[in-house]
Amino acid sequence: MTAINRRRLLATAATLSLLFAPALPFLRQAQAQTDPLPSWNDGPSKQAITGFVARVTRQGGPDFVPPPERIATFDNDGTLWVEHPIYTQLAFALDRVKALAPLHPEWTSTQPFKAALEGDMKTLAASGEHGMAELVMASHAGMTTAEFGKIVTDWIATARHPRFKRPYTELSYLPMIELLAYLRANGFKTFIVSGGGVEFMRPWTERVYGVPPEQVVGSSIKTKFQMRDGRPELFRLPELNFVDDGPGKPVGINEYIGRRPIAAFGNSDGDLEMLQWTTMTGGARLGLIVHHTDAEREYAYDRDTEFGRLDKALDAAALNKWTVVDMKNDWKRIFAFE
Amino acid sequence: MTAINRRRLLATAATLSLLFAPALPFLRQAQAQTDPLPSWNDGPSKQAITGFVARVTRQGGPDFVPPPERIATFDNDGTLWVEHPIYTQLAFALDRVKALAPLHPEWTSTQPFKAALEGDMKTLAASGEHGMAELVMASHAGMTTAEFGKIVTDWIATARHPRFKRPYTELSYLPMIELLAYLRANGFKTFIVSGGGVEFMRPWTERVYGVPPEQVVGSSIKTKFQMRDGRPELFRLPELNFVDDGPGKPVGINEYIGRRPIAAFGNSDGDLEMLQWTTMTGGARLGLIVHHTDAEREYAYDRDTEFGRLDKALDAAALNKWTVVDMKNDWKRIFAFE
Repeated sequence: MTAINRRRLLATAATLSLLFAPALPFLRQAQAQTDPLPSWNDGPSKQAITGFVARVTRQGGPDFVPPPERIATFDNDGTLWVEHPIYTQLAFALDRVKALAPLHPEWTSTQPFKAALEGDMKTLAASGEHGMAELVMASHAGMTTAEFGKIVTDWIATARHPRFKRPYTELSYLPMIELLAYLRANGFKTFIVSGGGVEFMRPWTERVYGVPPEQVVGSSIKTKFQMRDGRPELFRLPELNFVDDGPGKPVGINEYIGRRPIAAFGNSDGDLEMLQWTTMTGGARLGLIVHHTDAEREYAYDRDTEFGRLDKALDAAALNKWTVVDMKNDWKRIFAFE
Repeated sequence: MTAINRRRLLATAATLSLLFAPALPFLRQAQAQTDPLPSWNDGPSKQAITGFVARVTRQGGPDFVPPPERIATFDNDGTLWVEHPIYTQLAFALDRVKALAPLHPEWTSTQPFKAALEGDMKTLAASGEHGMAELVMASHAGMTTAEFGKIVTDWIATARHPRFKRPYTELSYLPMIELLAYLRANGFKTFIVSGGGVEFMRPWTERVYGVPPEQVVGSSIKTKFQMRDGRPELFRLPELNFVDDGPGKPVGINEYIGRRPIAAFGNSDGDLEMLQWTTMTGGARLGLIVHHTDAEREYAYDRDTEFGRLDKALDAAALNKWTVVDMKNDWKRIFAFE
């Protein structure tokens, strides 16, 4: 190795550690230990994960899967980060509506905007899918993709969760971030497949989860290419393009990834079809559901909640031998800041 | 390194060379030489490529681009492989219509099927976009994604180009395959962004171009998830989902990749907006157009053809200083079999 090459290599290493150091300090900690999943308590959930990875990576073994086919898909809300008391993206939409309200005096007397401005979550919920769509269109469309990316980046840097008083990106689950890194260290390509808006996630998933924009699949609105003052722009239209939830998840996986996953991770009925599509093949597969059982450190909910409901998928888990993570007992730590 | 680890490493290397050996023998040849683009004659096109790569990879230089942002997008038909006398996917559709004709006696008297069955390309072309869509729906929908993948794989293995009498996958351009490999060796992630059907390309792009399914963006029809006999299936519907052509290309790039490319490669007006979106940013960017100028070894066409037309994009190339490859003079070899 010449001196110049060595210098370049060191410079690259320095750049990389600068990039990752602020966001993922715990990963270096994890790598220094023997256990790749230090925030997981020993037990059936952890064993199911490590056993599966050992099987599909054993060269010459009956369940070996070549690296290019090691596709793992993760739901986001409630699986990788906190989704209570409301989805983070809804908190973002509400803040956007408040910021835009001066330009829309009619909102003080029109639903669902009135409810959004007054923080009346009950009326907002009653406005249903149609009301939510109106809220999203008003707050997420009408600007270029670059402008929207900047709005998201600014918001995610400053907004705070009402209970934890921390940036939402700090409310990602440490055991799941370890799991993402563990899978990648074993040749997996990790994807997010979320009902959330794809352009709401892409600005920060690489920093927080190590998942680059091109490996994020989500819901979207339509965009239109146009030249504006001699510059090419993509303009965000108030029109739904794709809903990446429920039966939409396998559709999105096929359309955006083009390979069938061998492992899938979710926490609600919105992930049911993704787990079915992933695991019901006859091969060695891992389906995993995060069950929110820890009201003290996080939240406890399943069958009776308004959103993030885990009902059919919990029954299907028993039937299909999916791993159900008991957050309270399986996770030694939930957040990196604990 | 322990003996076991060494053995595993050697086994992996052996597996990899088995995987790539049949498809890409010329790459190993290329790697053994100093010149990473041996099929390119020296000249302004080759210099534009190597100069651009040198600039964006020079650590600390003014045009340095970090590896994660080194996104390169390639059109397929006419850019990576032959598109004359008809698009390969149209040849596939015509063969499918012939294979399905016994189940559809009405086709012998209904257009565009009658024209398709009789090989009457003039009438077929006159049926326009609507006729083409009918042909695609009849030949590409009505089965599961797995079934369609198998149909494509079988067809591409056996079909032959009418002039070259070889499998279509052998009609990929060697200089472009070298270019894909050269960019990847320099930290680029290479994507296909094609007007062609995404599920028509994904079964073979990894073998032929080294581009995995998840890095292929294309046109698509809608699919629907359903449980059939207790098994999850994705069923292909006769309904258009996305047209990845012209202004659809930057839209597709944003939706499926989520990053703006720094290099883009095309050959027709259908690539105009992709090249605008890629290059008109003020940064160091590479826009390249393959100009078909070699009637003897391949084909010569530009402004006056019915499809693959290169007209507006040729004018835009001069305006935007895009590189225009003169196939006849810039390419020492066109195909690997020459």
